[in-house]
Amino acid sequence: MRTAVSLSVPLAVLIASSAPLPAQDPPAQDPGQSVRAVRAYLEHNEATVLRELRDLLAIPNLGSDLPNIRRNAETLVRMLERRGAKARILETGGAPLVYGEIGDPSLPTILFYCHYDGQPVNPSQWAQPNPWNPILRTGALESGGREVSRWPARGEPVPPEWRVYARSASDDKAPIIALLHILDAWRASGIEPPNRLKFLFEGDEEAGSKFLPQIAGEHRDLLLADLAIMADGPIHPSGRPTAVFGLRGIVTVTVTVYGPIRPLHSGHYGNWAPNPAMRLAQLLASMKGPNGEVLIEGWEEDVIPLGAAERAALARYPQDDDAQRLQFQLGSLDGGGAKRMELITQPSLNVRGLQALFTGAEARTLIPDVAVAELDLRLVAGNTPERQLEKLVRHIERQGYQVVREDPDSAFRVNAPRLARVEVRDGYPAGRTSLEHPAATALVTALSAAGLGKPVVIPTMGGSGPAYVFTDIPKMPFAALPVVNHDNNQHAENENLRLGNLFQGMEILAAAAAARLRD
Amino acid sequence: MRTAVSLSVPLAVLIASSAPLPAQDPPAQDPGQSVRAVRAYLEHNEATVLRELRDLLAIPNLGSDLPNIRRNAETLVRMLERRGAKARILETGGAPLVYGEIGDPSLPTILFYCHYDGQPVNPSQWAQPNPWNPILRTGALESGGREVSRWPARGEPVPPEWRVYARSASDDKAPIIALLHILDAWRASGIEPPNRLKFLFEGDEEAGSKFLPQIAGEHRDLLLADLAIMADGPIHPSGRPTAVFGLRGIVTVTVTVYGPIRPLHSGHYGNWAPNPAMRLAQLLASMKGPNGEVLIEGWEEDVIPLGAAERAALARYPQDDDAQRLQFQLGSLDGGGAKRMELITQPSLNVRGLQALFTGAEARTLIPDVAVAELDLRLVAGNTPERQLEKLVRHIERQGYQVVREDPDSAFRVNAPRLARVEVRDGYPAGRTSLEHPAATALVTALSAAGLGKPVVIPTMGGSGPAYVFTDIPKMPFAALPVVNHDNNQHAENENLRLGNLFQGMEILAAAAAARLRD
Repeated sequence: MRTAVSLSVPLAVLIASSAPLPAQDPPAQDPGQSVRAVRAYLEHNEATVLRELRDLLAIPNLGSDLPNIRRNAETLVRMLERRGAKARILETGGAPLVYGEIGDPSLPTILFYCHYDGQPVNPSQWAQPNPWNPILRTGALESGGREVSRWPARGEPVPPEWRVYARSASDDKAPIIALLHILDAWRASGIEPPNRLKFLFEGDEEAGSKFLPQIAGEHRDLLLADLAIMADGPIHPSGRPTAVFGLRGIVTVTVTVYGPIRPLHSGHYGNWAPNPAMRLAQLLASMKGPNGEVLIEGWEEDVIPLGAAERAALARYPQDDDAQRLQFQLGSLDGGGAKRMELITQPSLNVRGLQALFTGAEARTLIPDVAVAELDLRLVAGNTPERQLEKLVRHIERQGYQVVREDPDSAFRVNAPRLARVEVRDGYPAGRTSLEHPAATALVTALSAAGLGKPVVIPTMGGSGPAYVFTDIPKMPFAALPVVNHDNNQHAENENLRLGNLFQGMEILAAAAAARLRD
Repeated sequence: MRTAVSLSVPLAVLIASSAPLPAQDPPAQDPGQSVRAVRAYLEHNEATVLRELRDLLAIPNLGSDLPNIRRNAETLVRMLERRGAKARILETGGAPLVYGEIGDPSLPTILFYCHYDGQPVNPSQWAQPNPWNPILRTGALESGGREVSRWPARGEPVPPEWRVYARSASDDKAPIIALLHILDAWRASGIEPPNRLKFLFEGDEEAGSKFLPQIAGEHRDLLLADLAIMADGPIHPSGRPTAVFGLRGIVTVTVTVYGPIRPLHSGHYGNWAPNPAMRLAQLLASMKGPNGEVLIEGWEEDVIPLGAAERAALARYPQDDDAQRLQFQLGSLDGGGAKRMELITQPSLNVRGLQALFTGAEARTLIPDVAVAELDLRLVAGNTPERQLEKLVRHIERQGYQVVREDPDSAFRVNAPRLARVEVRDGYPAGRTSLEHPAATALVTALSAAGLGKPVVIPTMGGSGPAYVFTDIPKMPFAALPVVNHDNNQHAENENLRLGNLFQGMEILAAAAAARLRD
């Protein structure tokens, strides 16, 4: 199954690629040794890692595109098996899960979770024609990075500033590639896996991980580990190893405000027929104050307060708010002066989309028939989707609205002075592990010993992810290890991966994989 | 130029079509006689009128589609000439104007103004594939009107409830067809034009009549008349002749609120990076109260109050608000209990479009980079576009915004706590003629004498139109005579014309054309 290598490739690669295994040391939970093995491997294999990433990114990965999603999953099974892992597909009601394991079953176990699906794309907004046809650039597009026509050949070095542009380059196929090449690196250095490793690669994360909780319940023993590590999200901009012990939950909601049954001429009927776009604006405005503070009653209720260890970690966190404000060209900030990392420990309400009739060249002098807002509500530990949604609906009702779940009929419409439809798309709760848990301590210790800088420890990340599936169902400690560049355009057009982050990410994940979980 | 007719067509039609003119009476300003001539003509020519309408609607008429707009104009010149009118094209910087005249130059003069351009179309929202391929139906689409595959042959009657579905069927090609067939009707009855008639057909009305004021200035003598009549807009739902002595002005404005330079992940940056969709909502909400009342300072300033005659006309106006509320399925109304016809005598502020990132299946968990609102501001007599716009901009500034006209650069962005761009698309003022002007009285008298019911007299219509071009430039009295069905879906998808309104409209316009303007 291995690719043939040319004679110009150095000996170490030949050993890794095709030579019989050398005699191996007994497994040692030695993060430093694990990291050194990765460094030795990368000296000659950066292009090999890059090329396998390119091939994986070339498989389209919208969660709803089931034929291509399955191609991704089957490719991942083969990639695991090629490294000596046992691998299988776990079928769900949607995209298949890929499960794999390697290492001595008597060792402590780490479950690595990643996702192989990506956010929807609007190719017209990308600088490249096809987001699934990866482009290599000499740097960030915004900084004048030029396209590199020839991808480095096996054995050639790869400049760390180069970037791969493609959907899921960072979110979240890069960590999958990193983990698999750590196995290759260990093998090349003659190291046995220092812990038993389990892999779980999901294909429905961007659609809300609908099937993951059920699978985690049905396969509890399969997934159970001494520590679950989610490899997803951007590393701290300082480049220091970043360990995150909680992820927010999320509920996405569509709010539709109704006006006349059809668009009306704004001259003949304006000032008289209520305008649903204006009413939606008033409704949304009632939800937040001038500094972005949520005004919905009880919004911060239910939140489990951070403990002393978490507050201390936030105090130590290297704040980068000012630099980010300039980078994003923001003339002011929400949150009344609080730091971003503190603000994301609170539940949020974000207007992610607005629409009523037309803007631009198609605009016409009409009163819209409906106006729509798409909201995402981020949840923190203690929140539940049901409770947060209930607060939102109560708030809308208090603004004088009748709230429906389905399109109302005409009898309903003429009798409701204000009428809104609230549709819930997806939702799941947050998950968080105490910084004082022994597995959390062991992970931070391993990262510290890897010689990659003092770890940045974050009680909870701003992004959502199915941490609760690990913390609440098989009930195990959880951490996220984000490794990709923070300016990766995650979820947006021109998503990209800085390759220096991919290679450093291999070192970080290799240190974590060797964490000493039992004394 | 006339079409050959078959032997089965009655004698009156043959006379109208090809026989030499009979000896004619001297012109009489007799509205009753003029209406009777139309009725006699329609007995055998409904299908002829309908077919010429169909042919005119089949020429696409977006103001920006200059080749097709010119085809419309050239067709209209030929249609005028075919009736013995002198006709020519007046070139503008945009769509050509069509000018025509007929009748004894010593007679009082009425200028009829219509427009031949139409609003933009989104064919996917229409029930028919092509809005410029007219469809004949047995009734309104909403009431189950079925498509009629065979259009009536010449001489056949046309049921009044049948409707033509096409862009501009009502707005505003129907009145053009009506006026031209009144000339045929007079000719068929041996009547000379009772007044000298001028025709002005515009091709840029829906784009804001940008070129009309200049043309009206340059060709002041050509356009000058004892009365200008605009044939546009929907008749009162009672079907009684409707005379409107003012039209509102309009300014359309695009308001863009800026957020981060690119969309940001709502989890990592929410609660911290301000959301421009929320800020736009708050900004719009600051502009109107819960009953739709405009809160912008001085919004009703500058308005010239209605006189006693106008107030009396409003008091006599047959209110239909309750029926319209039920028809449009509105559960409440703006305006604090005032009648629609009173409310439209005030300036308005309408949100005609809203947009930020995506709604529906494309929605993604992002903080938008910008949010856009399209506004239309309707003006009444006394308002000017400049003043109304200035009030809007001052209001936005008072909400803490820096207001720019062009896209701001990054240095500007990071220094502006709140930043909005205000772009003005189009604008012109209102125009209104006193109900006590002798020409106004003469018109109402003519309509009363036509036997079509007591005229509904309206001081100003809700819709905008370039009345000011007539009232303010050649300075002549002005009236609008709307004739099409009120449920014509003007400006929206599935625009249609009820054919009974077309035929009755010919009678109304024929009465007006015979108004006794000088004693």
